[in-house]
Amino acid sequence: MTYPTLQERAARAIAECRRIAAMTEEPGRTTRRFLTPPVRDVHELLRRRMEAIDFNVSLDAAGNLRGLWQPRDLRCKRLIIGSHIDTVPDAGALDGVLGVMLAIELAETAQELRLPLPIEIIAFSEEEGVRFGVPFIGSRAVAGRFDPALLALQDASGVTVEAAIRAFGLDPSRISEAALGDDVAGFFELHIEQGPVLEAEDLRVAAVTAVVGQSRLSFEFTGHANHAGTTPMRLRHDALAAVAEWIGAVEELARATDGLVATTGKITVVPNAVNVVPGAATVSLDVRHAEDVTRKSALENLVARAETIAVVRGLTVRCTPQMDQAAAPMDEMLTAYLVEAIEAAGLSVKRMPSGAGHDAMVMATRVPAAMLFLRSPGGISHHPAENVLVEDVEAALHVGQEFLKRLAAELG
Amino acid sequence: MTYPTLQERAARAIAECRRIAAMTEEPGRTTRRFLTPPVRDVHELLRRRMEAIDFNVSLDAAGNLRGLWQPRDLRCKRLIIGSHIDTVPDAGALDGVLGVMLAIELAETAQELRLPLPIEIIAFSEEEGVRFGVPFIGSRAVAGRFDPALLALQDASGVTVEAAIRAFGLDPSRISEAALGDDVAGFFELHIEQGPVLEAEDLRVAAVTAVVGQSRLSFEFTGHANHAGTTPMRLRHDALAAVAEWIGAVEELARATDGLVATTGKITVVPNAVNVVPGAATVSLDVRHAEDVTRKSALENLVARAETIAVVRGLTVRCTPQMDQAAAPMDEMLTAYLVEAIEAAGLSVKRMPSGAGHDAMVMATRVPAAMLFLRSPGGISHHPAENVLVEDVEAALHVGQEFLKRLAAELG
Repeated sequence: MTYPTLQERAARAIAECRRIAAMTEEPGRTTRRFLTPPVRDVHELLRRRMEAIDFNVSLDAAGNLRGLWQPRDLRCKRLIIGSHIDTVPDAGALDGVLGVMLAIELAETAQELRLPLPIEIIAFSEEEGVRFGVPFIGSRAVAGRFDPALLALQDASGVTVEAAIRAFGLDPSRISEAALGDDVAGFFELHIEQGPVLEAEDLRVAAVTAVVGQSRLSFEFTGHANHAGTTPMRLRHDALAAVAEWIGAVEELARATDGLVATTGKITVVPNAVNVVPGAATVSLDVRHAEDVTRKSALENLVARAETIAVVRGLTVRCTPQMDQAAAPMDEMLTAYLVEAIEAAGLSVKRMPSGAGHDAMVMATRVPAAMLFLRSPGGISHHPAENVLVEDVEAALHVGQEFLKRLAAELG
Repeated sequence: MTYPTLQERAARAIAECRRIAAMTEEPGRTTRRFLTPPVRDVHELLRRRMEAIDFNVSLDAAGNLRGLWQPRDLRCKRLIIGSHIDTVPDAGALDGVLGVMLAIELAETAQELRLPLPIEIIAFSEEEGVRFGVPFIGSRAVAGRFDPALLALQDASGVTVEAAIRAFGLDPSRISEAALGDDVAGFFELHIEQGPVLEAEDLRVAAVTAVVGQSRLSFEFTGHANHAGTTPMRLRHDALAAVAEWIGAVEELARATDGLVATTGKITVVPNAVNVVPGAATVSLDVRHAEDVTRKSALENLVARAETIAVVRGLTVRCTPQMDQAAAPMDEMLTAYLVEAIEAAGLSVKRMPSGAGHDAMVMATRVPAAMLFLRSPGGISHHPAENVLVEDVEAALHVGQEFLKRLAAELG
């Protein structure tokens, strides 16, 4: 029997992703929300692929498609490999789906190498949070962290999570059965970076150290709206000028703090008229870092800066926290194996945090997790132009194969 | 015969303004647009007042109510005193109207003093530009600068300027007859400052040196929208951060340039989302100065700053001019008399430009013009809280009386 080369596997995985991208709610562009009709076609394709390599395929009550390969003679804990198959509206072909196709390719590889390692492949039903406004519906269920209150959430058409699950032929009362037991050694996710770092550093892959913690706040500066012609500069209390000064401080701090990203992405000015000195301005702050202590220290600094700027200018500022999510570190031991695997594959070792959320973040709350990023050309994601290089996918499969070898040796 | 004191005149003028504020399109708040029904009530009140002091009252075809006092034995040119009687929506009682009431009080004073000075009082029909989007309809007609194309402008209900004039019982074909001949010595306007300068300097009145020139431009910075989590600071091309830096430069230059006001009042950010690095941001610039050369030099500086900031950050910037209006200096000779009058009234002399447009700006294109500002408590205008101190009105009447004396001596 001859097996495909890793290059052939890489090309096949990408081709399958492109095929799946055509399974969509909207003709002409890829949009595939939680348990919508095209998900059935994706499941059909994945089921066929997994059954072809003797995986035992089932659908859990949260809509996750799961394939299990647990040879009778192997009593050790299994490795789960997976990612999600839902998409944002007008998506690319690779976000999530590539991780599922690579899980299948790696499972074949493990069989080819006769690795003594039970494997479960999971195609998570929901990660993006598009249909119901809450992400990770699939991985929450698998991690045993599915709050039944989520069942009452409604989509834009007034359909609840519960009704969507039933309409797909599943029984929402059985979601708790999707939760993992104690027979899992770890979770491994391969995912495109969705950012520009690997491309900028000319690297193919990176070991993810953590999914960053994230804070979101809004800052409302209140001054006085005045006539733009009759109010001299020295008598102004310009809320937008205060915000502008503070945005400069945010940028300066983030640039000076290793690994910190801080974004002022949204602004509202009142009255927002050409000929009126702005009386009030509200600006958002999104701060992320792999270490919670660094993130919190930056926040304190930026709140203090906002207050100083307001006082000096004769304004007031009100700061409203809107989200505070701790960092989710990946497992040290699994990540050490992953780094060894990167070296064994002949690649430069790059460790980096993930600035975006992933299923691995939720899974890490339940089992040891590791994650491998693949370079995103142009840093583009959540867009039809989302892409990946076949050589990078080949490299990722090489790394994955080396990772599985090490894990099999450790667990076997 | 006993005449009222200046204090009594001041109190009466304010009381009349408050009475006129109740003549409105909207019960409970003052809104009086060009030739709307309440304007008839204002005309009735003003006509009664002017006819009581033997003025010959008429309505020109642009809706300006005009009262002429031209004793037969006086052959010299006349002085026009006036301001406007239209208002912004939800206006105060004093913007414009106070200048008309003070014109009447000053005319009485001139008669009382038997000054050899023919006087015309004009209550301009339109200055604010609210109903048809174009200001100065009244003073344009008097200055001989009424473009007949204006007749076709429509208000929010689809009524044209022409139809509004006809509905008021006037003949739009006769607007050209409203234009002044060569028998006018000058125009004098008294108006509230509508800004905070006199209050900040503890002064009652000021001689206006010029209505400032004004430029409006929009600056569109274009960078790249990126994921707020996955894009490190060094790889960003953040359009809002660029705008923020430039707003700081605008403020710094304006603060360092005597008499310059520069306002960034309106901003639009794309996509304006909490978790996306802004890809594009457009900000308005409004720059005003009494000297055109200073304004233009500031503009060149700020355009260059925008371009430098864009280049350094790897963005582009496009600058679109939207308005460029030259400064309108008041007449030097008339203003010298006005300054003498301020001194004669025992007040500190303050010269200042007007940052807002006024009828005097249009009249100055046809006849020598002078303008006196009265302190605005709190700098508030275009708001029901708009106010004036009776002592300041008394002081303004004193200055006006001295000004008329000097003009009568000069012309007589």
